[in-house]
Amino acid sequence: MTVVYDQAHQLAQAVKESNEFQTLKSLQAQVNAEETIKRMFENFRQKQLELHMKQMQGQQITEQEKQQIQQLFNTVQLNPTISKLLEAEQRLNVMLEDVMKIVMEPTKEFYKEP
Amino acid sequence: MTVVYDQAHQLAQAVKESNEFQTLKSLQAQVNAEETIKRMFENFRQKQLELHMKQMQGQQITEQEKQQIQQLFNTVQLNPTISKLLEAEQRLNVMLEDVMKIVMEPTKEFYKEP
Ligand SMILES: [Ca+2]
Ligand SMILES: [Ca+2]
Repeated sequence: MTVVYDQAHQLAQAVKESNEFQTLKSLQAQVNAEETIKRMFENFRQKQLELHMKQMQGQQITEQEKQQIQQLFNTVQLNPTISKLLEAEQRLNVMLEDVMKIVMEPTKEFYKEP
Repeated sequence: MTVVYDQAHQLAQAVKESNEFQTLKSLQAQVNAEETIKRMFENFRQKQLELHMKQMQGQQITEQEKQQIQQLFNTVQLNPTISKLLEAEQRLNVMLEDVMKIVMEPTKEFYKEP
């Protein structure tokens, strides 16, 4: 088991040292450096998380809520730093999804139809 | 990024070679080797997954369904091989949860309250 944990820690370190991670960290610092930009982004992120929570609880998102978050997104995207941050988030998320797929791949044989 | 993917593959290999994984694999082969045991386990597993899907979709599990799965569990547990398999599953799941926590740890700073 300790081999597994060692490899897990090495992977965590590789994630932390990756371009994807470092870029996002840098952009987040840039966004947080300006109070109005920071607040604008946090407002958007909060609304985004609320809708996500609703969906997780099996609740429907209303048309009005969909339009509201789309408009919020269109607005915050106008700020170049926030725009780059959202793209950097996306790239990190894609990398992490790939990582999860790779790591969980061996366990798929336990879910095979016989 | 390739460092990350290399480490991810090494971690996957470590998971595959772990006692937890090999034990579960062996017990699954033992369960599948006897048609009645296999069917009994698959029936239980199917019911378990159905209830899990319901919960994921935000639906309530009825008292009757709770009792039904509990009874099914009590019954399949009487078979020693199935009982060991369920324990082996649990141990593998715990290890994988730990692994996920370790790997995702660096990304927690992006969710910190400022
Ligand atoms: Ca490694
Ligand atoms: Ca763009």
